[in-house]
Amino acid sequence: MNPQPNIQVLDCTIRDGGLVNQWDFSVDFVRDLYQALSAAGAAYMEIGYKNSPKLHKLDKAGPWAFLDENLIRETIGQKTATKISALVDIGRVDERDIVPREESLIDLIRVACYIKDVDKAIDLATKFHRMGYETSVNIMAVSHARDHDLNAALQRLADSPVDIVYVVDSFGSLVPRDIEGLVERFQRYLPNKMIGIHTHNNLQMAFANTLLAMERGATFLDSSVFGMGRAAGNCPTELLIGYLKEARYDVRPILDIIERRFIPMREKVEWGYTIPYAITGLLDEHPRVAIALRMSADKDKYLEFYERLTTVETHAAHL
Amino acid sequence: MNPQPNIQVLDCTIRDGGLVNQWDFSVDFVRDLYQALSAAGAAYMEIGYKNSPKLHKLDKAGPWAFLDENLIRETIGQKTATKISALVDIGRVDERDIVPREESLIDLIRVACYIKDVDKAIDLATKFHRMGYETSVNIMAVSHARDHDLNAALQRLADSPVDIVYVVDSFGSLVPRDIEGLVERFQRYLPNKMIGIHTHNNLQMAFANTLLAMERGATFLDSSVFGMGRAAGNCPTELLIGYLKEARYDVRPILDIIERRFIPMREKVEWGYTIPYAITGLLDEHPRVAIALRMSADKDKYLEFYERLTTVETHAAHL
Repeated sequence: MNPQPNIQVLDCTIRDGGLVNQWDFSVDFVRDLYQALSAAGAAYMEIGYKNSPKLHKLDKAGPWAFLDENLIRETIGQKTATKISALVDIGRVDERDIVPREESLIDLIRVACYIKDVDKAIDLATKFHRMGYETSVNIMAVSHARDHDLNAALQRLADSPVDIVYVVDSFGSLVPRDIEGLVERFQRYLPNKMIGIHTHNNLQMAFANTLLAMERGATFLDSSVFGMGRAAGNCPTELLIGYLKEARYDVRPILDIIERRFIPMREKVEWGYTIPYAITGLLDEHPRVAIALRMSADKDKYLEFYERLTTVETHAAHL
Repeated sequence: MNPQPNIQVLDCTIRDGGLVNQWDFSVDFVRDLYQALSAAGAAYMEIGYKNSPKLHKLDKAGPWAFLDENLIRETIGQKTATKISALVDIGRVDERDIVPREESLIDLIRVACYIKDVDKAIDLATKFHRMGYETSVNIMAVSHARDHDLNAALQRLADSPVDIVYVVDSFGSLVPRDIEGLVERFQRYLPNKMIGIHTHNNLQMAFANTLLAMERGATFLDSSVFGMGRAAGNCPTELLIGYLKEARYDVRPILDIIERRFIPMREKVEWGYTIPYAITGLLDEHPRVAIALRMSADKDKYLEFYERLTTVETHAAHL
């Protein structure tokens, strides 16, 4: 592989993996992960959501769902070359919670939005930009966006101060040809932005799609350790770091923490490829129905689940 | 997706999955799978190895390691549109065991070989061709082949009566760029042959690589149900059949048999992505050391395993 000096590996285990275990990570766990990611050469660790508990009610969510500067400071201690990122959702973040960057350990704020909310996302990201943060807008569920809506959104992003724009395969339904087309389109509309890629593994394509996006010019590559992320999970950090050939990468700290932390955790909470996630991926649907199935006694009733999602009447009701 | 009328899905669950459970499938299981694959639209079922127990000693191997015509007949009963294939290894098959095709239920004999044995493979396949069989040569471990050796082998295959030539990613170490380059090269050297692809999932790329090979012109696509195959397993049949849009494909019989047969079996025997298989994939090595690790008490000692394979002295000894 050619050297890719601009590649930025962004590990989102705590944030996306938190969707699996309700952000039930100890401070010790997150500190350990930060050290492992630092030693492995990850450019960023996404340490959670910076949403407001007043605007987003969650039962029994751990502290990484509502990041607090003191908690980050207590956890990270001395910062390494690995930067910190946080995700916010449109309508769930209270702007008044965000302090100027010089008072924060956060470097990058990523704003997640559906395409209809891209103007709100640009407004928010612009405010964070003025406060000194690096910013991204992550367009979720891009497989459901209509061409002209997506093009219009990209046009507006091109004129914004946002640093990075992400292709997000929320449903894990995209195949290589889709990813290549999207990255090329994002680059055409956004010649002065960096492009990011965030994948899900419903079709066992998360790593492949990430590499293909990189080869087409995406430089911000999301991953999570042992693939820990919602439903089928993400591009595994161990594969991405293990594959990249630059001297700064070292897969060993990731192997070590998987062995010590993630194998025991995986015995208690489930993520990764299962048939219901494959089904929602193949149908290009949100995984929420599959997540509900996996938590029920019918978790392995695949045929019934598939019939339920594809029978015309039920499908209409389901929408 | 454009219609791909020439695509042939070849399910190799019993043959490659048999490497996981020593071919311990009941006649009833194999019959059930044949019916499911027939209803799902698979073009071929590979029912096992047609090696000779005299030439290949195996402890406690089930009957699918040494196929017998009577067993196939008892299992399959009435043949559907789904053809039967069998794999033979150079040096392990006794030609005298092969009856003329009109006396056999086998349609396709696939000859697996390393590149050094390609002439022997061509000789064997030519004999089977004369007996009326469809034939393929499956060049294993293609990631370790040198360019000029591979080109010379392809040249000789071009002049042979072999119908299909397979790219086999034995170590699961190939990424999309590799696969695309290999399929293009095979097509350049073999304009009058069909090209096949057989992948392993060490880097979670088996399905992605299969689709990419198809888009470059490979038409014989190997897969196995729930990915059941040696070590990290193969391209999952449920994803491939679920993705292909032609009317003849129906994923439901595959979902049904996974639920009834494969989930219970997976609780007893292991296959699929684990970190040791990722490591041998990243290092482009045979998975046998990782298989041995997974059967030992050290199965989750990833860092030690990685160090062992990458330390120069040990690596030399290991080779």
